[in-house]
Amino acid sequence: LKERDFAAITSILRVLNNTEIIEQLDVLELTDAAIVYRLLDKHRALEIFQELDAPVQADLIGGLQRSQVLEVFAGIDAADRVALLDELPAKVATSLLRGLDAPARRETSVLLGYPEGSTGRVLETRFTTLYPQLSVQQALARLHLRLAETEEQSTVMVIDTDRRLLGVVHLAQLLAADPQAQISTLLREAPTADVHEPAADAARRLANSKCEMLPVLDSEHLVVGMLTWPDAVDILEDAEEERTARSAGAEPLHRPYLGTPIRKMVRARIIWLLVLAIGATLTVKVLSSFEATLESMVVLSLFIPLIVGIGGNTGNQAATTVTRALAMGEVRVNDIGRVLVREVRIGAVLGASLGAIGFIISALIFDAQVAAIIGLTLVALCTIAASVGGIMPVIGKLLKVDPAVFSNPFISTFVDAAGLIVYLSVAVLVLG
Amino acid sequence: LKERDFAAITSILRVLNNTEIIEQLDVLELTDAAIVYRLLDKHRALEIFQELDAPVQADLIGGLQRSQVLEVFAGIDAADRVALLDELPAKVATSLLRGLDAPARRETSVLLGYPEGSTGRVLETRFTTLYPQLSVQQALARLHLRLAETEEQSTVMVIDTDRRLLGVVHLAQLLAADPQAQISTLLREAPTADVHEPAADAARRLANSKCEMLPVLDSEHLVVGMLTWPDAVDILEDAEEERTARSAGAEPLHRPYLGTPIRKMVRARIIWLLVLAIGATLTVKVLSSFEATLESMVVLSLFIPLIVGIGGNTGNQAATTVTRALAMGEVRVNDIGRVLVREVRIGAVLGASLGAIGFIISALIFDAQVAAIIGLTLVALCTIAASVGGIMPVIGKLLKVDPAVFSNPFISTFVDAAGLIVYLSVAVLVLG
Repeated sequence: LKERDFAAITSILRVLNNTEIIEQLDVLELTDAAIVYRLLDKHRALEIFQELDAPVQADLIGGLQRSQVLEVFAGIDAADRVALLDELPAKVATSLLRGLDAPARRETSVLLGYPEGSTGRVLETRFTTLYPQLSVQQALARLHLRLAETEEQSTVMVIDTDRRLLGVVHLAQLLAADPQAQISTLLREAPTADVHEPAADAARRLANSKCEMLPVLDSEHLVVGMLTWPDAVDILEDAEEERTARSAGAEPLHRPYLGTPIRKMVRARIIWLLVLAIGATLTVKVLSSFEATLESMVVLSLFIPLIVGIGGNTGNQAATTVTRALAMGEVRVNDIGRVLVREVRIGAVLGASLGAIGFIISALIFDAQVAAIIGLTLVALCTIAASVGGIMPVIGKLLKVDPAVFSNPFISTFVDAAGLIVYLSVAVLVLG
Repeated sequence: LKERDFAAITSILRVLNNTEIIEQLDVLELTDAAIVYRLLDKHRALEIFQELDAPVQADLIGGLQRSQVLEVFAGIDAADRVALLDELPAKVATSLLRGLDAPARRETSVLLGYPEGSTGRVLETRFTTLYPQLSVQQALARLHLRLAETEEQSTVMVIDTDRRLLGVVHLAQLLAADPQAQISTLLREAPTADVHEPAADAARRLANSKCEMLPVLDSEHLVVGMLTWPDAVDILEDAEEERTARSAGAEPLHRPYLGTPIRKMVRARIIWLLVLAIGATLTVKVLSSFEATLESMVVLSLFIPLIVGIGGNTGNQAATTVTRALAMGEVRVNDIGRVLVREVRIGAVLGASLGAIGFIISALIFDAQVAAIIGLTLVALCTIAASVGGIMPVIGKLLKVDPAVFSNPFISTFVDAAGLIVYLSVAVLVLG
């Protein structure tokens, strides 16, 4: 037991009954008791918690908050943690987090059994609740007693005795209502979040709903906390920073520009530049296989940056638009067909327009042969670039990779190489 | 007067005294009275409004809300409007907007004398206020009577009889407080916004402050309304959409991706592609001036996309990072020197690293001459690209142009052309 053999402990716990476990918890030193308790499965943990006397409950919560306990669980690697730590019961989770400040809460959330980046990790657990059978007057009296420490809360969750969410009421609504009215008549439905879902998804739902907070429910639909809008704004801005940085081929800094050491800024950028540079060696490869064509008509090399540039821009426009649409929830992965059809059409129109302009201009300056090569290349390239740029973020999302990370180096590399292949193949065709 | 000769009307109004104007307003038909009233300067408008009886005040507000009146003022062009329409007094502005729904409020805001895109145009004017001398109990009673229609408000502004903001109290704070306490003892300071400042700046301040709303004050520091967080989220996301789209060389759609007609999507992208394509003709120009060098050593043309690509990516990384930092208020225009110094250093480190790698790889595959050309080019180019990419958004902001719009085509064009000049000049030097 001192050897932290968690698997052994859980198998022992499985054969003991509740009374035996409570006796054991009583005998153990507080830190050990907390560790053992945390290894119980959710159902057991709730039963036992409810059988304990209030002071013993408080001791247990205190034990779970101890830094030694946190270290023990933080030390287990992520995959084992998921297997070992069942979700904590809503009641215990809320008591555990209440009374901790924000950084401590985030540290402690390692104990909760919610995955990294999930809504469970950004829970606000200091809130007051109401019961449906209260009158408005009784509710106001309860809030008068309870609110002191949670002064900024303005939407109150109404729950039943099992902590099931029945609806929400807004403080302004309570103040405006008839004091004799029953809370149950004032209930409004509210969108909710799940502790296990990605925090960014919940934050987006909150921002779209224009509510002030989302009740956060565990897997049994019981209230464990809420996601408040200042937290949601932080989450959305972090996500936006990542998206922006990665669309430009850099890692997000997550700190103010002027306050970031040069070393960190270089690190955020160089990995991507290397990835892109390695990708770009593909273009060297493509060009060297057409070396004879280039040698026979050096004028073709004059247009290389123009062709590559237009292709890259077209792909980038499509990728950025679709990446943002995915983040905003406007496009889902099963819209991939629709995205493809749209981008093929857009790319074809863009290609036809630019191709026509390119043809006319290069016919005037160079000759009809060059003009035909440029014109045809632009039509084909814009269509390819827009469609690839459009579907790559969706494929990234489908593969559960950050759409911006997935699409950006791929598009640069692929579209550059594809552009050169199209360009020089068209040249070979036109030149005969 | 029927000829809408506003200049003449204002000069007549200037010689009349308040009593005479009130008489005139009385005689005129409601629409005309409203137009005449709106042409008064702010000080006059307030005096006269306060001299009117309540029902006449209501008639006047009704007149100002009439669509004919709105059309008259919407018809004046923007520059004249600024000259003709002084800011409305806070009291009148609030009454005018109250009772209108959001779209109607936005239409009517043309009457207020606040510039396009300013906080004044996104005012929420349905709010209840409190006075400092009330006790908590009296305040709750007042809110009970007043709140019905503004149920979602949770932070209440406390004002004096001149509508000067004294502070704010939160509903939860009121509920928790001793009923006998005086409101003045509960006041908190709140960040505020100015009706004339850009809405995006106010929204950013609100998001950073974690408050729920910002009181919005007119140029005399009197309360005209508030900026609520759902509005702030919309404003920030619109600004973010613009920034994202323009960094990728497209215009923002301001509507969901799948719901936008292909025609509009093409239009949002093609202008930028054309601008970039025209810029790219510069690269054709640069390359043709080095045609002899390219002809004598065709292998040089193989690296064109790689060089141009790395330069473009380096510039883009810097530009995107700085554009976002400007939007977040982390960097200001007078930090331009610091930005330049940082980006020169970052660019030099990136260039040295990539140059060294490029040198080694191309020495292995090609020869020492080619390797020297590639290595030296990358060092110089990364430094140039990062510094130009970094300061361009700041210069854009300095010139009051959208930093993303200003920096993007400029960087693509400039860095591509500069990259080729550096590359081929280095080649000429190395080849002797």
